[in-house]
Amino acid sequence: MAVQFDAVQKGHSIEAGMNGRPVINWPLENQGVSLDGIKYALVWQVEPDLFQKVPDLEVIFSAGAGVDKILSSSSVPNVPIVRFVDPTLTNRMSEWVCLQCLMHLRQQRQYDLLQSKKEWRELRQAEAKELCVGIMGMGVLGQDAAKKLAILGFEVIGWSRSRKEIPGIVCYAESGMDEFLSRTDLLVGLLPATRQTSGFFNRAVFEKLKRNPSMRLPVFINAGRGQSQVEKELVECLQDGTLGGASLDVFETEPLPAASQLWGLDNVVVTPHVAASSDVIALGRYVDGQIERYESGKPLENIVDRNAGY
Amino acid sequence: MAVQFDAVQKGHSIEAGMNGRPVINWPLENQGVSLDGIKYALVWQVEPDLFQKVPDLEVIFSAGAGVDKILSSSSVPNVPIVRFVDPTLTNRMSEWVCLQCLMHLRQQRQYDLLQSKKEWRELRQAEAKELCVGIMGMGVLGQDAAKKLAILGFEVIGWSRSRKEIPGIVCYAESGMDEFLSRTDLLVGLLPATRQTSGFFNRAVFEKLKRNPSMRLPVFINAGRGQSQVEKELVECLQDGTLGGASLDVFETEPLPAASQLWGLDNVVVTPHVAASSDVIALGRYVDGQIERYESGKPLENIVDRNAGY
Repeated sequence: MAVQFDAVQKGHSIEAGMNGRPVINWPLENQGVSLDGIKYALVWQVEPDLFQKVPDLEVIFSAGAGVDKILSSSSVPNVPIVRFVDPTLTNRMSEWVCLQCLMHLRQQRQYDLLQSKKEWRELRQAEAKELCVGIMGMGVLGQDAAKKLAILGFEVIGWSRSRKEIPGIVCYAESGMDEFLSRTDLLVGLLPATRQTSGFFNRAVFEKLKRNPSMRLPVFINAGRGQSQVEKELVECLQDGTLGGASLDVFETEPLPAASQLWGLDNVVVTPHVAASSDVIALGRYVDGQIERYESGKPLENIVDRNAGY
Repeated sequence: MAVQFDAVQKGHSIEAGMNGRPVINWPLENQGVSLDGIKYALVWQVEPDLFQKVPDLEVIFSAGAGVDKILSSSSVPNVPIVRFVDPTLTNRMSEWVCLQCLMHLRQQRQYDLLQSKKEWRELRQAEAKELCVGIMGMGVLGQDAAKKLAILGFEVIGWSRSRKEIPGIVCYAESGMDEFLSRTDLLVGLLPATRQTSGFFNRAVFEKLKRNPSMRLPVFINAGRGQSQVEKELVECLQDGTLGGASLDVFETEPLPAASQLWGLDNVVVTPHVAASSDVIALGRYVDGQIERYESGKPLENIVDRNAGY
């Protein structure tokens, strides 16, 4: 039996992918239920004392690609944590990243504004190949987005903690950060939330981005984790011309508070952490498949490295 | 010497790509200038008596992919008409088509509305592979868009007057129209303006599109020619639930009149015939290259078939 510690998407059911395996949907069904003997937990948000409720836990499954919320729990037991890796999740992230890069390239928000005024006017238009997308975080998600953006015509470069070798994509690591930023018109953040990435996207970084005459100003696109961005400095940079626009799916506080200026800034696209929202049926299938592997003595896949934080 | 019969993009100059070849920019410099002896004309919009002014014309170059405006002129002389074919034009069209397909897939307009209300809410989300993009017009532009949409994850099918063989893309021709439409969630028009395509996109066509439970309603996307769409029926279909949205770069009358309801309908994206607007420098290089070929006795490329109309 598995326990699901979050209603991943309200109105959807994970059981549909679980092949008949019984699931306790916590906290929807938690009245007086004992979790003794429960071996598997599927987790997204984490309550402070969550893991103390499951004394016999053997494996933790994360409902998303990021596991920062699980690792930051003080009660997380020393059992394997398995990340969700799925073509659906990867494809959805690339859809969102490509959409946002194209929206900024093609000035969709400016055309929306002209449309609202019934104004027929052509804007000066760069072509994709004139702009460079710099992706930070070149794991499964970053590499897929890079490949697709390159086919759409963008120049694409990548940065990751450990340098990757990817055909056709110039890749940077630690020491190449400044050069990476100086070449980047559209900065795409796909970083996990770790101590190293906390507060990374700040004024100092935005000021190092390329000033490209083909583009009005550089753009920041984040679908990694909100903890990696300093929103106070981001708002200031959007207002003072350091940045020309942003697309944000993640925020320091989620849901994004109504008081945030990000909701109302011109040329800022806000989406509610849905860039790669997990398909619950695909998630159910994945977890079910991993439990089957585990119970038949095969190794679990996509186990998190707790030291690296992802 | 060549004559340019249109200020293709205001504020830009075609001479930059013309390698020093002299150009008369008509009608900006037309005061009292004789065009006797002019052999080449670069044309976009066409005045009624345009070609009568150039008695010695040998080649007509079109500034865009479509040549309907040239062919419909009563004064067009019997000389070769050369279409503009350029990677820039193709890439820009695909940028626009991919952007619009992704906007409808990811419900960007609905998220824009939620953002304007500072409302954090997840919408039910289909994945690209659950939706089928049906492209009408599988020439250079249609094939490039098809390839890129397939890589973004969409199912892609194509229709053209003469059936094409394209690896990985199911292609239909005349007799397969109804089956093509019944499989299509996102209908992309890239048709030239000819007698056959005039008024093609009407209620009868929109009613044949797929009703896919993964998508709210089918969507119409047109970047071909406005003459192919019946805007009165299009507006009605958008209002009565036959269509769920549209992205339109072309219109029966351009600029789109302020009185058109298309400007203000929910989930309709209006852009001012800029999907693949020609890069004037690339256009200049292309025309210069074709003139060089012609003058050195080589055949002109991309000559229009006047019977087919494109």
